[in-house]
Amino acid sequence: MKTLIKNVHVLSMDEQFSEVKDGFVLIEGERITKIGSSSELASLAIRGDKEIDGKNGLLIPGLINTHTHAGMVPFRSLGDDVPDRLRRFLFPLEQHMTKELVRASSDYAIAEMLMSGVTMFCDMYYFEDEVAKSCKEMRIRALVGETIIDMPTCDSPKPSGGYDYCEAFLEKWQNNPLVTPIIAPHAPNTNNLEMLEKIVVLSEKYNAPITMHVSEMTYELADIQEKYNQTPIELLQTLGYFEREFILAHCILTSENDLNIIAESKGKARVAHCIGANTKSAKGVAPIKQMLEKNIVVGLGTDGPSSGNTLDLFSQMRLFANTHKTYNHDRALFPAKEIVRLATMGGAKTLGLADQIGSIEIGKKADLTLIETESVNMFPIFDPYSAIVYSANASNVDSVWVNGRQLVSEKKMVEQELQEIKATLYHEMENFVIEAKKLY
Amino acid sequence: MKTLIKNVHVLSMDEQFSEVKDGFVLIEGERITKIGSSSELASLAIRGDKEIDGKNGLLIPGLINTHTHAGMVPFRSLGDDVPDRLRRFLFPLEQHMTKELVRASSDYAIAEMLMSGVTMFCDMYYFEDEVAKSCKEMRIRALVGETIIDMPTCDSPKPSGGYDYCEAFLEKWQNNPLVTPIIAPHAPNTNNLEMLEKIVVLSEKYNAPITMHVSEMTYELADIQEKYNQTPIELLQTLGYFEREFILAHCILTSENDLNIIAESKGKARVAHCIGANTKSAKGVAPIKQMLEKNIVVGLGTDGPSSGNTLDLFSQMRLFANTHKTYNHDRALFPAKEIVRLATMGGAKTLGLADQIGSIEIGKKADLTLIETESVNMFPIFDPYSAIVYSANASNVDSVWVNGRQLVSEKKMVEQELQEIKATLYHEMENFVIEAKKLY
Repeated sequence: MKTLIKNVHVLSMDEQFSEVKDGFVLIEGERITKIGSSSELASLAIRGDKEIDGKNGLLIPGLINTHTHAGMVPFRSLGDDVPDRLRRFLFPLEQHMTKELVRASSDYAIAEMLMSGVTMFCDMYYFEDEVAKSCKEMRIRALVGETIIDMPTCDSPKPSGGYDYCEAFLEKWQNNPLVTPIIAPHAPNTNNLEMLEKIVVLSEKYNAPITMHVSEMTYELADIQEKYNQTPIELLQTLGYFEREFILAHCILTSENDLNIIAESKGKARVAHCIGANTKSAKGVAPIKQMLEKNIVVGLGTDGPSSGNTLDLFSQMRLFANTHKTYNHDRALFPAKEIVRLATMGGAKTLGLADQIGSIEIGKKADLTLIETESVNMFPIFDPYSAIVYSANASNVDSVWVNGRQLVSEKKMVEQELQEIKATLYHEMENFVIEAKKLY
Repeated sequence: MKTLIKNVHVLSMDEQFSEVKDGFVLIEGERITKIGSSSELASLAIRGDKEIDGKNGLLIPGLINTHTHAGMVPFRSLGDDVPDRLRRFLFPLEQHMTKELVRASSDYAIAEMLMSGVTMFCDMYYFEDEVAKSCKEMRIRALVGETIIDMPTCDSPKPSGGYDYCEAFLEKWQNNPLVTPIIAPHAPNTNNLEMLEKIVVLSEKYNAPITMHVSEMTYELADIQEKYNQTPIELLQTLGYFEREFILAHCILTSENDLNIIAESKGKARVAHCIGANTKSAKGVAPIKQMLEKNIVVGLGTDGPSSGNTLDLFSQMRLFANTHKTYNHDRALFPAKEIVRLATMGGAKTLGLADQIGSIEIGKKADLTLIETESVNMFPIFDPYSAIVYSANASNVDSVWVNGRQLVSEKKMVEQELQEIKATLYHEMENFVIEAKKLY
C-alpha cells in the first residue's frame, strides 16, 4: 500500500529544519520512502494507491504528548480553580474508577489526541491494561505505564498493589509494535523506599522505561527533604533511576544540582514538560531554558484532561512560547520553530523513539499530521512555525497518520465514530457523575 | 422579526451569574425580550419567526475585544520572535499600507472575530474610515479610532496628520448605530505635548472617547521620565485624560500611584488588557489582580493580528488564567467564571456600553455567541465556565448575533463568503508581500 500526500508544505523538523514548500511525501507500508517537490511527481512517475491533496496545508511529524492520563477524561472541568484539588477531588473520585470506565475514557482520549494531531503519547494511570488495549485497537503509538502508589487504588486494593499489576502488564505487552508497557511510580513521596528500590529492579528485569511525577509539588520536596535530606532527584539518583530510561514529568521545582543530575544521565533521563497544567495550578514554571542549555532532552505534555483540560499540543505550544519568553524577559527566546521541534522531535527523544519517529525523513515511520491552512485563523503565513505556535488550534488538524495508516481524515476519525465513543463514555460515567456531584 | 434560540445553556454573565440550564432566549428586533427554560416554551406559547436549536450549546454574551488593529492582518506571522519588531518590521512596512489594503484587512479581521464569537471590538490604526465602513457593512459593533502619531504615516504625509483625518472622521461617523468614532493617539511618547493637549480638546468637542497604548514599553517610560519626570499615566492625568472616557491599552508597567490615578477616575478610565501580545513579546504581565482590587474596569483584548497572531478571546482567556494564577502563585485566583466575565461584561464596561451589552438580560441588545459542545474537546462539562476558559477554542463557536441579527451560523459567515474576503485581501497584499520579503 502506497499513500501519496501531495500539495503540502513539508516541515520535516529534521536537524536542519529542512522544508519543501509545494511538497509531497510518499508512504509505503509503515514508512516514509520519498519526500520531494510536487512538481517532480510527474517526471519521477510517483503514484500512490491512495493520493491525498493536502491543499497547501502544513505537513509536520505527528505531535508527541509526553505525559498524560488517558483514563481521566471523566474529571475534566471538575473542581478547577480550587486549592489542593488532588486531595479534594481526584483521589476521592478515583475510588470510583472502574476498568470499563478507564477503557471508555481511553478510547475518548485517544480520539481527542488523534483529532488534534497527536500520534504518540506517554500514559500513566490505573487499569493500564485497558489503556493498552485501547491503543492497540485505535492504532495509536504509546508508552503505557501502570501507576504504583503506596495506597489502595481502584485497580489494586492493597497499597502498592500496582506493582503486581504492573509486572503482569509488562509481561503481557512485550513486543507489541505500537504499545510499549512501562512502569509508572506515582511520585517519590507517594512510594516508600523499599518500593522505589524494587521498581528499579523491575525496570532492569523487563528493560522497561520508568515514568514518574518528579519535583512537581512543594509538599513533595518538603517530605523528601525531611525524610532523606535530599531533593527528589537526588534521592532517585542514589536509587539508580538515572541509569534507567527515565521520563520525569514536570520537574518544576529543580535545583542547579538536580539539573546536573539529569544532564549527566546523557539522555537516559528526559523531561516531560507540562506548561499548561503547571501554570493553571500555579505550581510554577520549569526552568526549560536552563535544561536545554545543559542539553537535557525535553518534550511537551498536556498532563491529564483533569489537570490541563485539553489533550492537544497546540495550546501547549502557545502557552510555552508566551510563558517562557515572559519568564525569561526575552521575546527572541524560543522562536516558534524551536517550539514545534520540542513538540515533535523533542517528544520522540523524550519517549526514546528518535530513531523511528519525530521528523519527516526517509526511512522513518510515517507518523504525520496535516494542518489545514484554509481556516480564517491561518492567513497569511509568512512563517509556518509561527502559524502553528501562535495562530493554529487543535481544530485546524485535517489528517493524521500513525505507522503509515490514516486515522483522521477531513477532521474526522477514519475507523471509529466519535459519537459512539462518546455515548459509551457517557454511559460508563453514570455512577462517577453521581459521586462527583456529592463533592461540590 | 422574532428569533428564538432554544436548547441552550444560558450563561447570562449578569451580576449574579444567573444561568438557565436547558434554556431559551427570544430576540425581538435588536433586543433580548425573553429568557427562560425550554420546558416553558409550549405553555408560554413562545414562537420565533426563526427558531434555532442550540443542541445543548453554551449561549454567552458576545465576546468583546477591547484592543486591536483590524488593518494589520497582512503582518501576521511576519518577523515574530525578533527583538524590537515594532521598529524593524512594523513601522517600515506600514508605509506600504493603502486604503484598499486596510479595508480588505478589516473585512478579513471582522470575519475572523465574528467567527470566533467576538461581537464588538475597539480598533486603532490608519485609514480608519475604511475600518468604519467595513464594520457598517459587516454589521459588527465597534469603537473605531484613527491613530495620531508624530511621524508621517500611510494615510497622513505630515507628522501628526492623523489629527485632521481624525476630526473629519469624528464628524462623519456621528450617530451611527453600530460604529462609534473615537480618537487614538498612538502613545504618550509618540506625540508631543501640544498634540497630547489638542487631543483632549478634540475629545471634549465631539464627546469622543480616547484610546491609547499606555505604559507598554520600557523605552516609553524612560522617555516620559526623562522629558517630564513623570510616569506616562501621571503625565496624562495632568493633561486631563482622566476626565475623558479613556481606554488605556496594556498598562503593563504601572506603579501603585498609576493604578490609583486610574481608580480615581471612577470608571472613566479603563484598561484593555492584552495578555497574549504582552507575554509573547516578553513585555511583562499587567497587575490585573491589583487593578481589580481597586475596582478598576478591565476588559480583554487581542492586540493586532501581528502582535498576538489571533483575534479570538478564547486563547486570551486561557492565557489569562494560566499566566495570572502563576504570576500570583494562587491556583484559586480568577476562577473561570470571573475570566469569562472579563471577556464579556468587563469588555462592555471598558468600551462604555455596559447598559446595552455584555450580559444576557431582558432589554439588552442581542449580541450573543453560541458555543457548541459536540466537538471532542467539550466533554464532559461539569463547569461550563471551565469548559470555555480551559477547553474551548475559537473553532467551537457555532453561531453569533450582533444587534439581533445572526451573522454566523454553523461556523460560517451568513452574509459573506470568507473565500471572497480572503481572495480580495490576497490580491491587495501583493505589493506588501514584496516589501515584506525584503526585510528578511
